[in-house]
Amino acid sequence: MPEMPDKKARLTDAAADLIYRKGFAHTTLADIAAAAKVALGSVYYYFKSRNDVARAILERRQFEIEQLFEKIDRLQTPRERLRALVEVWIETRDNDARYGCPIGSLCHELAKGRGPLSGEAAEPFKMLLGWCEVQFRLLGKPDQEAVALGLHLVAALQGISLIANALGDPDTILAEAAYLGDWLRDV
Amino acid sequence: MPEMPDKKARLTDAAADLIYRKGFAHTTLADIAAAAKVALGSVYYYFKSRNDVARAILERRQFEIEQLFEKIDRLQTPRERLRALVEVWIETRDNDARYGCPIGSLCHELAKGRGPLSGEAAEPFKMLLGWCEVQFRLLGKPDQEAVALGLHLVAALQGISLIANALGDPDTILAEAAYLGDWLRDV
Repeated sequence: MPEMPDKKARLTDAAADLIYRKGFAHTTLADIAAAAKVALGSVYYYFKSRNDVARAILERRQFEIEQLFEKIDRLQTPRERLRALVEVWIETRDNDARYGCPIGSLCHELAKGRGPLSGEAAEPFKMLLGWCEVQFRLLGKPDQEAVALGLHLVAALQGISLIANALGDPDTILAEAAYLGDWLRDV
Repeated sequence: MPEMPDKKARLTDAAADLIYRKGFAHTTLADIAAAAKVALGSVYYYFKSRNDVARAILERRQFEIEQLFEKIDRLQTPRERLRALVEVWIETRDNDARYGCPIGSLCHELAKGRGPLSGEAAEPFKMLLGWCEVQFRLLGKPDQEAVALGLHLVAALQGISLIANALGDPDTILAEAAYLGDWLRDV
């Protein structure tokens, strides 16, 4: 987000990192100020509430997903692109085993009870599902099957982050990624 | 849990329900007392801390999983049993779309950062994974493949609860259950 003022970007960085490690419910604006090494007043200047912070993090995550898609869309085949998505989970497996998926865990916290931010929390999932659906369509799958396959892949990836975190075991991600690699070869 | 005193059972019921709907971080002992219609002092008599409440809920969830397995283990074939597990997700899809999986969402909250209760939070997952693994072994799968298939199934189920909650859409669970039904037929 190049047009974002430096300080707001720094605060969003600090907030995203803290909230990923501690959870949204356990992170106060004062914690964010301390982590970003700015005065609490500065935090209030950019974010009127914790919900504003959550919105900024969700925007950041969506920007990161866009950047990822831009990068892997350069791969030649939809199969390679889908495998590249699975590889992201392999790369981040140690953090996932400690804190869960940075997208899934925040969205889940915000969507619980379908609270005021649940609309925004749906967005990163819509992006992931939509992109996967396009890849499966490019693989020649009819519309409805492409949707089902995308849903299955994103579910498996989100679920394995949750299991890895619950068991504290990054190897579960390696095992599921191997399974999904075979699945993507044969699908 | 028949040996549990009535009041403790009632408090655990109220706590499990509240924490499922609001999240662990947002539920105080006072909230639990109010929901169970008992004095706060009574809550402290049974639970010294919120962590004790979380432990009691995890035990309750494990008991429920045991009861479920006892029931579906009566089905004749491992394939029918695995389908019966998927059907639990179909039955509870409206609640999942509102609050997530009652097991996954609590365990994820407790496992975040691998906190003091993460060992306990792993237990319901170990039960689910272990049971699925046994079913796939009974289907004739070699050990390593049975583990991988169990992991994939539990990941898909957990992930679809999370997606249903993030999108507020119980139909995603129906779609994924249909996918998994076909998968279990062919696996």
